Amino acid sequence: MKELILGEIARRLGGELLGDPDIRIHGIRGLDEAQEGQISFVASSRFLQLAEKSQAAALIVSPAHRHIENNLVVVENPYLAYARCAALFAPSEEPTPGISKLAHIGENCRLGRDISIFPMVFVGDEVELDDGVTLYPHVYVGHNSVIGEQSVLHPGVVLYPHTRIGRRVIVHAGTVIGSDGFGYVMDEENHAFKIPQTGCVRIDDDVEIGALNAIDRASMGRTWIQEGVKTDNLIQIGHNCVIGAHSLIIAQVGISGSARIGRHVVLAGQTGVAQHVTIGDNTIVGGRGGVSKNLPPKGTFSGTPIMPHTKWRQCQVIFARLPEMRKKIRELEDKIAQLEGKIS
Amino acid sequence: MKELILGEIARRLGGELLGDPDIRIHGIRGLDEAQEGQISFVASSRFLQLAEKSQAAALIVSPAHRHIENNLVVVENPYLAYARCAALFAPSEEPTPGISKLAHIGENCRLGRDISIFPMVFVGDEVELDDGVTLYPHVYVGHNSVIGEQSVLHPGVVLYPHTRIGRRVIVHAGTVIGSDGFGYVMDEENHAFKIPQTGCVRIDDDVEIGALNAIDRASMGRTWIQEGVKTDNLIQIGHNCVIGAHSLIIAQVGISGSARIGRHVVLAGQTGVAQHVTIGDNTIVGGRGGVSKNLPPKGTFSGTPIMPHTKWRQCQVIFARLPEMRKKIRELEDKIAQLEGKIS
Amino acid sequence: MKELILGEIARRLGGELLGDPDIRIHGIRGLDEAQEGQISFVASSRFLQLAEKSQAAALIVSPAHRHIENNLVVVENPYLAYARCAALFAPSEEPTPGISKLAHIGENCRLGRDISIFPMVFVGDEVELDDGVTLYPHVYVGHNSVIGEQSVLHPGVVLYPHTRIGRRVIVHAGTVIGSDGFGYVMDEENHAFKIPQTGCVRIDDDVEIGALNAIDRASMGRTWIQEGVKTDNLIQIGHNCVIGAHSLIIAQVGISGSARIGRHVVLAGQTGVAQHVTIGDNTIVGGRGGVSKNLPPKGTFSGTPIMPHTKWRQCQVIFARLPEMRKKIRELEDKIAQLEGKIS
Repeated sequence: MKELILGEIARRLGGELLGDPDIRIHGIRGLDEAQEGQISFVASSRFLQLAEKSQAAALIVSPAHRHIENNLVVVENPYLAYARCAALFAPSEEPTPGISKLAHIGENCRLGRDISIFPMVFVGDEVELDDGVTLYPHVYVGHNSVIGEQSVLHPGVVLYPHTRIGRRVIVHAGTVIGSDGFGYVMDEENHAFKIPQTGCVRIDDDVEIGALNAIDRASMGRTWIQEGVKTDNLIQIGHNCVIGAHSLIIAQVGISGSARIGRHVVLAGQTGVAQHVTIGDNTIVGGRGGVSKNLPPKGTFSGTPIMPHTKWRQCQVIFARLPEMRKKIRELEDKIAQLEGKIS
Repeated sequence: MKELILGEIARRLGGELLGDPDIRIHGIRGLDEAQEGQISFVASSRFLQLAEKSQAAALIVSPAHRHIENNLVVVENPYLAYARCAALFAPSEEPTPGISKLAHIGENCRLGRDISIFPMVFVGDEVELDDGVTLYPHVYVGHNSVIGEQSVLHPGVVLYPHTRIGRRVIVHAGTVIGSDGFGYVMDEENHAFKIPQTGCVRIDDDVEIGALNAIDRASMGRTWIQEGVKTDNLIQIGHNCVIGAHSLIIAQVGISGSARIGRHVVLAGQTGVAQHVTIGDNTIVGGRGGVSKNLPPKGTFSGTPIMPHTKWRQCQVIFARLPEMRKKIRELEDKIAQLEGKIS
Repeated sequence: MKELILGEIARRLGGELLGDPDIRIHGIRGLDEAQEGQISFVASSRFLQLAEKSQAAALIVSPAHRHIENNLVVVENPYLAYARCAALFAPSEEPTPGISKLAHIGENCRLGRDISIFPMVFVGDEVELDDGVTLYPHVYVGHNSVIGEQSVLHPGVVLYPHTRIGRRVIVHAGTVIGSDGFGYVMDEENHAFKIPQTGCVRIDDDVEIGALNAIDRASMGRTWIQEGVKTDNLIQIGHNCVIGAHSLIIAQVGISGSARIGRHVVLAGQTGVAQHVTIGDNTIVGGRGGVSKNLPPKGTFSGTPIMPHTKWRQCQVIFARLPEMRKKIRELEDKIAQLEGKIS
């Protein structure tokens, strides 16, 4: 169990300490769970009452809450500081470096220092693994792939040949990177003729890919996941897509081939993006959006057809009242018929 | 090939036998497929004609159908009895117990009796496997996990460390349990900072998980799948979700973080559930429902926005008639304009 | 690097050569990327300007474009010819045949010639592998399965026992074939009682299955993917489905149990098909269609409820104008009230 004194925690979070710097802290919990020796945090004023009753030994708070009676670490963004503090106490799961004799390492590979390769890993020929890479059991790394330093591939991840993974990338279990894109052309008998998928996938630094993603290789050129992108689970990314830096892709989103997603974009769960569509930087698409046309930057969109989110909320409300609307129209018809009767 | 006499089948199904108890039965088939030596079943009156023509050697029927001319096993619920009877004849696929020398077993594991561990399985340190557990090839069991008696993990299943699996649980191939939840907080540069996911996943007794599910570990505490839950394929269950006992989750459903699904709930295919939403016991959500708010118990809901199923059906019908409705409104406009002309 | 003279390319594509037959070609690229020694193609008149400026050493064109000043290969369908030409230059990734000593091969297997079995593959008992089959690392082939000649299973593919795969089939990484269908019947305590899934999956010749598909075995009989079908990634196919020959199933589609999809059908991304539904030959369902009823052949359908595509487009347009429609109805109400006031 890790233990830090409160003064050290304040220093590491870049916060102001109000209280006893020598208290020993060994963990972080929610306001209602934290006990002696544990720190907690006040993410917003909504939690003020809970905070005042909390048994926590110390609290991470914003400047607005510096009056709470407890040992305090005052920071601008308590939720961010919570995440950083939790990282201090998170159990370190890094395996001892070493290359299992039960792993297969291909020919002409270039392996850096402090690499961990678990049993039953398969590494193809001409692969480059930089310092500190971890490959968990049943990982497959196709030939001529490159994995940057400190990257971690969880169990069962598959990299097809010629995949390029940057530094500090995390790929969760069961994800497939570099499978053939869905590219066919109809032949004379109306049978699908396969277009060779000869491109690759490139994933930049500090990306985290969830479990069971399918990211297809490009037909020519590359499918490109830019730095800092985070994807949730069960996501489809088609061939030749570009996902701009620092975008967030939530669970079960499907992005068709050659779509270009901007930087700092958020695609909420179960959204679909049509092929060749462009989404501008900083745009948010709400859950299950159907993006069938280009979207400008800095917008918030929802629905099928995709439209500004506020308008979509109106449409949704009215959709649920369609039966009343139909009734109303019938009443108007009746009234008009009566009026027509009276006048003619 | 297994074989049972009809009297024994009636006894095991708790049914009344009408006919020859000594007929030998070696299998169960549909009414139109069953032949000599095979039993079939009449699930409802719709199948009465088929039943009367069936070549089956015997039929499982409800009391309402005890007049059919054949050897009969009369039970309250013929469909349930069919399932039980099929289980009697199902080929037993249980492997011979034994621990392959081509598997990796970590240190300080506690292994029960009659365990089957296939080649290329990886079991981490400090794992507990109870009696009769089966681990198929390429299964990964992270350290400090526990698997209850008679549970079966099909090929390629991944359990991240600290996962707890109950008794008689079946997990189908490729499913990932315990990957990190999608938890980030934006830092000063608007980059996603990872919130450590230090919780775990707990799966209770008699759960069956389909293929290629992604079930995330909790950020703190646990993600909890309660007893008797059955999930289909390609399902997403976010961090800190609770899925109540005996609920059924159909294919491609996505459940966002911290959602609480009640007991005996049914979520039909491709449904999405927003984060922190609660669904009451015994509630049914129709295919592709978009559950963005809490739902009460014992209801039937559909659509986006989610609404009572009967109302949703009305809205659907009207949606398909929107072009007519618009035409109607234009006609009313014209008529009113005419009326206004006549009056003024 | 492969190299062919232009005359040979024209011959292999069955095209007419206009220009120098002896130019050496070593690759194919897009019109704006192709350089000396590379061939490109003009898929339609839209690309005519690009074609005239292209640095490509030769162009594949349709008869309508035989006037372009370059070395030309004239064919009926330049896009199809491009795919065929790309196949000529695609790097051949076929592994050297051989059976790794680190693979597990069961008892009583029948293995053809020129088979490649990579390390960490598991092949169960009584399996039949025909000539030229390739099993990449971490593939699992359950007992009594059959795989036809020249078929390729990419890393981590799982075939449950008794699966039948045809010839020249490609299955991409992580796909699960033959897991139990979602079949339960409620027992006296309203708990789900498992119906034994004793059928199998059959996949015919020249099928390509994408990554992370889940294709369930039949409850009885078989789930059947007919010849030439192509599926994208993350697709669910329920028990007892039939997918007709040469149909295309795009990413994240879910097909419920016992659905019958015709021949040459296209199901676009994220479509859902209800159980027991039939879709006629040559029918197209647009993205995220909700197919809850039978569809005739040769139609194009979209939406939920599913409807003819042209009608759905109208409905979509009106849906986005529901706020205006509601306003219009309120105006009509006011006008009618005024008229009523004037008349009475």
